[in-house]
Amino acid sequence: MKDRVFAANLALPDAGLVKLTWGNVSEINREAGLIVIKPSGVPYDQMKICDMVVTDLDGKILEDGLKPSSDLATHVELYKAFNEINSVVHTHSKNAVMWAQAGRGIPAYGTTHADTFYGVVPCTRQLTSEEVASAYELGTGKVIVETFKEKIIDPLAVPGVLVYGHGPFTWGETPKKAVENSIVLDEIAEMASMTEAVNHEVLPIPQYLLDKHYFRKHGANAYYGQKEK
Amino acid sequence: MKDRVFAANLALPDAGLVKLTWGNVSEINREAGLIVIKPSGVPYDQMKICDMVVTDLDGKILEDGLKPSSDLATHVELYKAFNEINSVVHTHSKNAVMWAQAGRGIPAYGTTHADTFYGVVPCTRQLTSEEVASAYELGTGKVIVETFKEKIIDPLAVPGVLVYGHGPFTWGETPKKAVENSIVLDEIAEMASMTEAVNHEVLPIPQYLLDKHYFRKHGANAYYGQKEK
Amino acid sequence: MKDRVFAANLALPDAGLVKLTWGNVSEINREAGLIVIKPSGVPYDQMKICDMVVTDLDGKILEDGLKPSSDLATHVELYKAFNEINSVVHTHSKNAVMWAQAGRGIPAYGTTHADTFYGVVPCTRQLTSEEVASAYELGTGKVIVETFKEKIIDPLAVPGVLVYGHGPFTWGETPKKAVENSIVLDEIAEMASMTEAVNHEVLPIPQYLLDKHYFRKHGANAYYGQKEK
Amino acid sequence: MKDRVFAANLALPDAGLVKLTWGNVSEINREAGLIVIKPSGVPYDQMKICDMVVTDLDGKILEDGLKPSSDLATHVELYKAFNEINSVVHTHSKNAVMWAQAGRGIPAYGTTHADTFYGVVPCTRQLTSEEVASAYELGTGKVIVETFKEKIIDPLAVPGVLVYGHGPFTWGETPKKAVENSIVLDEIAEMASMTEAVNHEVLPIPQYLLDKHYFRKHGANAYYGQKEK
Repeated sequence: MKDRVFAANLALPDAGLVKLTWGNVSEINREAGLIVIKPSGVPYDQMKICDMVVTDLDGKILEDGLKPSSDLATHVELYKAFNEINSVVHTHSKNAVMWAQAGRGIPAYGTTHADTFYGVVPCTRQLTSEEVASAYELGTGKVIVETFKEKIIDPLAVPGVLVYGHGPFTWGETPKKAVENSIVLDEIAEMASMTEAVNHEVLPIPQYLLDKHYFRKHGANAYYGQKEK
Repeated sequence: MKDRVFAANLALPDAGLVKLTWGNVSEINREAGLIVIKPSGVPYDQMKICDMVVTDLDGKILEDGLKPSSDLATHVELYKAFNEINSVVHTHSKNAVMWAQAGRGIPAYGTTHADTFYGVVPCTRQLTSEEVASAYELGTGKVIVETFKEKIIDPLAVPGVLVYGHGPFTWGETPKKAVENSIVLDEIAEMASMTEAVNHEVLPIPQYLLDKHYFRKHGANAYYGQKEK
Repeated sequence: MKDRVFAANLALPDAGLVKLTWGNVSEINREAGLIVIKPSGVPYDQMKICDMVVTDLDGKILEDGLKPSSDLATHVELYKAFNEINSVVHTHSKNAVMWAQAGRGIPAYGTTHADTFYGVVPCTRQLTSEEVASAYELGTGKVIVETFKEKIIDPLAVPGVLVYGHGPFTWGETPKKAVENSIVLDEIAEMASMTEAVNHEVLPIPQYLLDKHYFRKHGANAYYGQKEK
Repeated sequence: MKDRVFAANLALPDAGLVKLTWGNVSEINREAGLIVIKPSGVPYDQMKICDMVVTDLDGKILEDGLKPSSDLATHVELYKAFNEINSVVHTHSKNAVMWAQAGRGIPAYGTTHADTFYGVVPCTRQLTSEEVASAYELGTGKVIVETFKEKIIDPLAVPGVLVYGHGPFTWGETPKKAVENSIVLDEIAEMASMTEAVNHEVLPIPQYLLDKHYFRKHGANAYYGQKEK
């Protein structure tokens, strides 16, 4: 499990999604009662497998060693609310950050978006002064969960979010999948802003095309890719 | 033939035109009655020459093995309508996607465009709900063919298209040429949007300059490059 | 000390912040009365550790050898005015240059900005004709100092500036930190312009979020990263 | 001389200025009566030193071998009109092309520009139908020369130009310098468009700052860089 989390963390700078020590990946094993997450502020080229931090399902550290990512409480909150996900990724990838800073969800302007995200990737509301002051990282998790609840979005169908003024979180069934969702999120974020630049009146793709592309890759009738062995 | 298709598929991530498992290249041999195409959803760094999928001219699989790219039906339709082409490439390269999502053809703003595409690279109409529901990938091929027919465009003179809300397809006499056309298409797509950003009133180049550059490289009087040996 | 300055200078092209011979890093040792700075106009791939130029605290060269960076006088002026800094970096990184050329400070549009810069990264006024004619590089230093004094900005809390029509300078307690600040400055400069492109009405993040992120990483109550050993 | 021209041609794809077979560099030796230029349409990774084409001062080929770049006549015309230059470079680098396609000269918005180009990098007028039809590449050279004559620009002080609807040509005393000018031209082209994006009212830098930066690096009183040995 530490291997997988380590590899997924290293995939972030390889994909150009993080600079310096930014970004973090975690994985949860609900049966074993464990979360593994990147240590805080360690440079990617010095990070070792054994540096990965192990906590219980409430984020309490279980082993001596490094401090966990300061965003741990956000990850824990997402795991508690979204039962089906096993990995969470946070980056400051610049195209996703651009939309988060702009306070806008990313409209589904094309099939690249629809292949992974079944509709708008939402942007949360701004955290209040009280939420930031009391338990900031927990509050970040709560506002993400609130966003999906209020807009009635299925977190498996839209495996990512933009936190207002901050940046993206994505998730998935595995660390590999969660990282892939971060890669796609940044790509569609860039495509969407470029699309608006060449057509100020652009509209999202129709629902039937969104359905087609999403369900071509997901669910019982998916026919993209090879059969799982 | 599998070698060529394999190499051309690998050229896509090398040129920065695809991420993850996106994109696909096929080649047709009309005399032998064969099409070879990339398998669906296989990561580029794990793909092997023997993974290439062989079908007949209707896209029926001829060998046991992996499933073909889900876009196969689009390729088949293009081969049926455009007799002179021997290879088709599909990518989600971001600059071409931007114009496809914007629903706009790419105007010929300069000689870089004219060297490869003899006029506007057209964007298809949006597929209807019925076309998407019944046979989506076939419908994608049909709407491309319809676009070239209605606008009276020669598919050899304009070896590429944007599918509305989706992305680019290019083609050529060989897989190498078809991939090159994808590279050029993405480059001119970026140049065109940048051009509009610095001059909101920009006009396409005049017809005589389009003619000059296109026919400098193509046709009986071409004088660019070395003589074929 | 030459080792550190040499390594920090090489980090600039590695991070994509400079082209050709652009950019320079210096370090000061106030106790020893020394400044070490990159030589002027030497290509990065030919530069050697022994090429680093050593001067006294007024910028007077102490060893035979190459000429120092032509921006030395700016570095000296910053060291005199900002007592707590030990290294200065100058680049022409394109995103920071864009804001400098536009004559605008970079607003704090998100937490990526707040993690490193506690508020707007200011842009100086234009130098006057007299300042440019008499002692240009010194005048550049003076206008930076004036900007921080007039706007009552703490140079440790905002470790960087844009010189109007020119480009960025950053600084820090070590050459490594000063280079990191140049990397972050260019990143947030790009994010900020992209943010304005997708939301023309965007506002800076609220003060309480700026406080939270800045003090999560800096000062007595910081909890980001590992404890210093 | 073939070595130098070969190396300078290879520097173009290394600097990201050309794709496929685009771009070309030549060098002239007026005393020996020779011009050496890249062959037409040869891929960079297959090009050999001995492929370089040698012509006389009128562009007449002197050795058996490959055909020269189709832009040879443009190079020859520039060498005839601009006596002080010894090398010419042509690319389709995308940021310079953007301005050429937009039909706009690049204003001097900052010192990065002023360090290499002493004022606006001009854009030629559109070639007429007659000029394109009769002797296109020669006409391209003529319209560049006309632009510098009419605007009374010194080709050594502004070592580059944008050909309307086409792209950039740069030049210099050596192939290395001419390539560097292409690198800088593309960089300032990008910076200039980005600058306009964040400040729609931006003005060029004042003449006294343009003077200062240009003459810091050029002419009798230059003090940037090391003394020539």
